[in-house]
Amino acid sequence: MTPPSRLNLPCAPDDPALTTPCLLLDEARMAGNIARFNRHLARQGLAARPHLKTCKSMAAAQRILRTPAGPATVSTLAEAEYFAARGVTDICYAVGMTPDKLERVLALRREGTDLSVVLDDPVTVALLDAAAKRLCTAEDTPLPVLLELDCDGHRSGLDPAGDELLAVAAAVQASPFLELRGVLTHAGAAYACTDTAQIAALARQEGDAVVAAAERLQAAGYACAVRSVGSTPTALLGEYPQGVTEVRAGVYPFMDLTMCGLGVCTTDDVALSVLATVIGHRRQDGALVTDAGWMALAQDRGLDECFARWGFGLPCTLDGTPLPGLRVSECNQEHGIISFRPGEAVPVPALHERFPPGSRLRILPNHACATAAQYDTYHVLRQGQITACWERIRGW
Amino acid sequence: MTPPSRLNLPCAPDDPALTTPCLLLDEARMAGNIARFNRHLARQGLAARPHLKTCKSMAAAQRILRTPAGPATVSTLAEAEYFAARGVTDICYAVGMTPDKLERVLALRREGTDLSVVLDDPVTVALLDAAAKRLCTAEDTPLPVLLELDCDGHRSGLDPAGDELLAVAAAVQASPFLELRGVLTHAGAAYACTDTAQIAALARQEGDAVVAAAERLQAAGYACAVRSVGSTPTALLGEYPQGVTEVRAGVYPFMDLTMCGLGVCTTDDVALSVLATVIGHRRQDGALVTDAGWMALAQDRGLDECFARWGFGLPCTLDGTPLPGLRVSECNQEHGIISFRPGEAVPVPALHERFPPGSRLRILPNHACATAAQYDTYHVLRQGQITACWERIRGW
Repeated sequence: MTPPSRLNLPCAPDDPALTTPCLLLDEARMAGNIARFNRHLARQGLAARPHLKTCKSMAAAQRILRTPAGPATVSTLAEAEYFAARGVTDICYAVGMTPDKLERVLALRREGTDLSVVLDDPVTVALLDAAAKRLCTAEDTPLPVLLELDCDGHRSGLDPAGDELLAVAAAVQASPFLELRGVLTHAGAAYACTDTAQIAALARQEGDAVVAAAERLQAAGYACAVRSVGSTPTALLGEYPQGVTEVRAGVYPFMDLTMCGLGVCTTDDVALSVLATVIGHRRQDGALVTDAGWMALAQDRGLDECFARWGFGLPCTLDGTPLPGLRVSECNQEHGIISFRPGEAVPVPALHERFPPGSRLRILPNHACATAAQYDTYHVLRQGQITACWERIRGW
Repeated sequence: MTPPSRLNLPCAPDDPALTTPCLLLDEARMAGNIARFNRHLARQGLAARPHLKTCKSMAAAQRILRTPAGPATVSTLAEAEYFAARGVTDICYAVGMTPDKLERVLALRREGTDLSVVLDDPVTVALLDAAAKRLCTAEDTPLPVLLELDCDGHRSGLDPAGDELLAVAAAVQASPFLELRGVLTHAGAAYACTDTAQIAALARQEGDAVVAAAERLQAAGYACAVRSVGSTPTALLGEYPQGVTEVRAGVYPFMDLTMCGLGVCTTDDVALSVLATVIGHRRQDGALVTDAGWMALAQDRGLDECFARWGFGLPCTLDGTPLPGLRVSECNQEHGIISFRPGEAVPVPALHERFPPGSRLRILPNHACATAAQYDTYHVLRQGQITACWERIRGW
């Protein structure tokens, strides 16, 4: 399953011992992205609870987290178990909790992880209470619960101004196995904004939702210490109102073409790329064929206007310079087609003479989370050389 | 990283010890699909060289391959190494070969695997010859090469009627490290056909391309024993002309919504599904929110008309019955939104009352290769019970 480890580090990206496709991570770009994010939050007196669903890697998390113990956010219990086993003890599992997942949550909490869960439905509370009756012992402390709020009609969550918010809070409060810790929302609608001013306004809307809900809950006598918001676009392009206590975001250390399209960053900030080898070309139109198909790039199309411009990814030279006019126009499982956008003047020499079989390219991804998920390893790039391999995990 | 193994088999798909999302494989449907495929080929006096890029699993391959030793097709050297280590000795690596991959190819051949490679470019031949000079010893037998042909303008490959075919054959012949074994093509254009008659015509075109090229090569004095074709749609909806020697296809054991859309099968034949748990609902439109987002389903949109109908997947009850009018309309990383198609009459009771948090659904995938690639394990379903777990691999 694993190729013979023939790679001697450091090596150059065109080292034949390096199997392509593989995932490159530019360490300096990542450090710059993290510093920018933390500075922007610090100016507001805020701190991050980074979402580790993008990196899924302890080596990356060490550079992202405020302290080795967290705080952190995860999207699966597999992530929670992986990071908890490596010393992260303050974790929010930010995808709607269901009773079938309680046994694993309790196991983590019994090992000393302060794992909180998220829900938005009175049925979930009733089912968790019933499951906890079966599974909990006298030693178990109550499970911290964050109520998920809908701030923008994007996905799930309670209306911050609705009656159901107080009803669910009351149900949580009534269970001896649960403890209300706060409220949480995610402005997923940021990805549909057409300019940065809209995103900045959405950041305020995101913050207003948690603050308003927390104030209603506290006025009704419920504890609500945590008011958690976050998405990379709203966090970086906006400012949150007073009363927000933490910011969850995952893409910001890596960035991607979607963030470029939203105006969050430029292509010079994208720290993640896929290294591909040219395996041939298409005779009738001179398109390059590489070994980075959708298995290597993932099939996220990102924003419509970005997809029209960059297709499934933006081809770059080995030093990371974007190749003007080119895009990954089609993907099969292990074949990626690189061609000029319609209307582009095709330069001389022909693409397949400039990039004959065996030559290599780097491709910037549409969506860091999706592309990184196709790999078990980051190849860390420092000053043009691959200097380290970092593991990453997957699964649930 | 791996959840505690709490699963006692056999179990039902609604067993809370089963973590969702997970990948279900209906063994009886798979057996029926394999039998249909093999019968259809046998009627033409043909045999399969199954493409294991879809299953990536030895347990599945044992049911698919003609003999434990093969023949088989793979799309990565990681697959070749995995299957070779488990006794498959006749393998075609059907993605364009490049010199950086030669060391691993030679290692497999030295361990007794008859691994053949594919190319379509004289530059590749020259680079392979040069790399082989450095890497080969007197004990190495020549590397079998198949020339890739373009039968439909889809991707890479040589024109079966062009001069370059003979030039590349001559270059292969001239290298003491290479041996011409035959020709190979793939009718990728089948996925753009609008009716089954077009696909049947494309099967003939696919076969005609390899037979014509082989005859030209043989007339010019080159060996060309292998004339390899294949795609699941052309293999099942067409018949190949005399002279074709083997058929490569990968999706047919599993099937998917793309195959349904092309008229290759019905939804009753789809053997693969994703098991999801409802985690909530969206207040404003009653859409269900499940824990099967794009990480669980992949982001393949399949055919345009299928995507309009089924979105990212077709929701079914736990026994596999499609739920009328429903589709996976949106996907985030770990959230899948299930809603009624526009114009559908929304039945009573509301969706979130019929499927409250904690309830489970199965979702048929758009593209078996892409969805299966998101998992390390198949949960094998026999008569409604999960009876076994089969590993699968990934990477390059």
